Amino acid sequence: RKPRGESRLSRSHRTAHTDPDYSTAYVVVHTDSGLQGFGFTFTLGKGTEIVVCAVRALAGLVVGKSLQEIVSDFRGFYRLLSSDGQMRWLGPEKGVIHLATAAVLNAVWDLWARAEAFPSFRLTLPDSGSDPKQIVSCVDFRYITDALTEEEALDILVKAQEGKQQREDQMLKEGYPAYTTSCAWIGYSDEQLKQLCTDALKSGWTKFKVKVGADLEDDTRRCRLIRQMIGPDKTLMIDANQRWDVSEAIGWVSSLAEFKPLWIEEPTCPDDILGHAAISKALAPLGIGVATGEQCQNRVMFKQFLQASALQFVQIDSCRLGSVNENLAVLLMAHKFKVPVCPHAGGVGLCELVQHLILFDYICVSGSLSNRMCEYVDHLHEHFTSPVVIHDAHYMPPKDPGYSCEMLESSVKKHQYPEGDVWKQHKNN
Amino acid sequence: RKPRGESRLSRSHRTAHTDPDYSTAYVVVHTDSGLQGFGFTFTLGKGTEIVVCAVRALAGLVVGKSLQEIVSDFRGFYRLLSSDGQMRWLGPEKGVIHLATAAVLNAVWDLWARAEAFPSFRLTLPDSGSDPKQIVSCVDFRYITDALTEEEALDILVKAQEGKQQREDQMLKEGYPAYTTSCAWIGYSDEQLKQLCTDALKSGWTKFKVKVGADLEDDTRRCRLIRQMIGPDKTLMIDANQRWDVSEAIGWVSSLAEFKPLWIEEPTCPDDILGHAAISKALAPLGIGVATGEQCQNRVMFKQFLQASALQFVQIDSCRLGSVNENLAVLLMAHKFKVPVCPHAGGVGLCELVQHLILFDYICVSGSLSNRMCEYVDHLHEHFTSPVVIHDAHYMPPKDPGYSCEMLESSVKKHQYPEGDVWKQHKNN
Repeated sequence: RKPRGESRLSRSHRTAHTDPDYSTAYVVVHTDSGLQGFGFTFTLGKGTEIVVCAVRALAGLVVGKSLQEIVSDFRGFYRLLSSDGQMRWLGPEKGVIHLATAAVLNAVWDLWARAEAFPSFRLTLPDSGSDPKQIVSCVDFRYITDALTEEEALDILVKAQEGKQQREDQMLKEGYPAYTTSCAWIGYSDEQLKQLCTDALKSGWTKFKVKVGADLEDDTRRCRLIRQMIGPDKTLMIDANQRWDVSEAIGWVSSLAEFKPLWIEEPTCPDDILGHAAISKALAPLGIGVATGEQCQNRVMFKQFLQASALQFVQIDSCRLGSVNENLAVLLMAHKFKVPVCPHAGGVGLCELVQHLILFDYICVSGSLSNRMCEYVDHLHEHFTSPVVIHDAHYMPPKDPGYSCEMLESSVKKHQYPEGDVWKQHKNN
Repeated sequence: RKPRGESRLSRSHRTAHTDPDYSTAYVVVHTDSGLQGFGFTFTLGKGTEIVVCAVRALAGLVVGKSLQEIVSDFRGFYRLLSSDGQMRWLGPEKGVIHLATAAVLNAVWDLWARAEAFPSFRLTLPDSGSDPKQIVSCVDFRYITDALTEEEALDILVKAQEGKQQREDQMLKEGYPAYTTSCAWIGYSDEQLKQLCTDALKSGWTKFKVKVGADLEDDTRRCRLIRQMIGPDKTLMIDANQRWDVSEAIGWVSSLAEFKPLWIEEPTCPDDILGHAAISKALAPLGIGVATGEQCQNRVMFKQFLQASALQFVQIDSCRLGSVNENLAVLLMAHKFKVPVCPHAGGVGLCELVQHLILFDYICVSGSLSNRMCEYVDHLHEHFTSPVVIHDAHYMPPKDPGYSCEMLESSVKKHQYPEGDVWKQHKNN
């Protein structure tokens, strides 16, 4: 079991993150039987080597353990990685050390699902060998029992067994609803926006996200354009990528209210629970919700966002939280607080991973599609051995065993830093 | 300007952090003139190499800049380091990347103070070349303007000019009040507790902190013992190092209320603002305050702790927040919210650094000693070129130019990982 180093794949456009160079810290766990598990965490480029360094530091806690030993006390194993007596000082459960924990645990979940020959979303289904008790035993309830106890979690899962089979059948047939972020990045010309939006409408997309926050006049023009293109009945969301302070966020978004956005995403600092609560309260009369989560560091922060009514849409991330284990805690808390989960995706492979989590949420936790949808960004899927399948703006459930984390050997080789061909060429230019 | 690698110095006793191996990521910035600045961030051992890796990643943003260029726009430089378009994904402003930022900025503050030939606490004093405007220009107000604007900060500093000279004279004569954590670590025998407490009383200590949280019966016996030793009028504080969930914290601390602790420190997860608020509310009728901060990741979290009345004592840390720059923001917010600052110290060199901040707080911000004291732990000072001077349980203001960050060349050489003698011996045993 060893980290594989970093891999840099592509470029795209963001507001707070102005020059991303989409990368991952990619982990492969090896077993004596020859079975492998793949995992990663997503980064924006520079600093990926820090995450890789953290993965190497965590490796000592993983190497030598059997899969059975890990999954028979998955909560204990999560705690071992996230609460090491010395390394927890570097977090706890946040930033680099938690991103590395996510990469390692993602690989373990991938390995487990492969060993059981199920896609991850089915691994956690009761009829696939697991039961609600086993699911709950993967979750560390430390620091969240004031919002959700183990007993309450178990109760939610047991109740949701009713109708589970129909929901699974429905998903296999129809897929999980998605929205697209690929049409309206900042920096696209109006012509590009129009063309991308026209194409997306033709492909059946009904929910569109627009990046905002750089310039109000520009935002107004672009939101008006998109709203005109999609008509009054389709869904528009806006995303500021942490651009504003609290009062600025309220003012700016109020100015865009005429375009009827469903939510404003990341209006301010991802750590600012009370700030998001103030923004939520101010925008509620305008019918605009607050969405956040892609940089929410752990379940303790999500707990407070829910307690404080600071968000109306929970955007879990498959690579920032501590893998499936911690995401289960958030799905269960969101259900208790009656707030819909609309995962963050995009980056490198985030769509591939998070589809498992949101399918599990629908089938085994929430049982609802109301106000729910999963982000989709149309890039970098070509590097994966089991890329997402989108049909009519829906994620079609993955069929291959595993957590869909594995990248093509050729992609890894080509993009591995610093010895891959892409980097050698970059150096020569 | 280059990172110097890690240095592991000693061992001590904690509750959540069960086996610390006190270390630092030590940074030296070199200038063309030959002047050097020293800085570090404290760690508990394993994972120090991750922080060193992050320091190396940040180095590219520092090397080649002149000191004048940095300090003439210190806010901009802080933002450059803390909000790099790619690396901020690894935080932002939290965990490994922020610890590394602290180490680098501490070295820059040390360099600046040496260049000006003042100890750091005086560098920020108006009569030493700086004025309130210059102090405020070091602070990044991003994400905190809903709690404190630049104008309000300036107003606080201008008002505090009155009586500044007397307060500085008073500090030079009497020093800043301290409390000791060296008497009652978990794991000490009752005999050890008695002996250490007797010695401390003889040396003039009047404020004592006891570590709790492992076993209630044991805590009760030890708190009773210490309270009996020190009498009813001296101050007792208790520290749980994040042991509990919210309701457990309330129950446990209520059981210890008879020993009249001034505060309970770190009752639960350092991220749990609302949890600390609930604990504060429950313990207020018992006359027990809540103290936290040594693992509070940034000014945005401190802002919310203050907004939510979630703490009654602000424990700033010189190596977790983004150096003097971010600590200034917290001192100013704490003053506005009328909450006393009682810095965290101990570890490696935290006493050496934080004394500058708390002296500045008294002289230039709060002007008050009411309910205020600075932690003191009696170890590892022998490794510093300008170790703290404690006289009659007070920190005597440092006189040497700089931020007191420099370690003895011989200590660095001996403890540097992995080539120092200490590590070679360790390997051979």
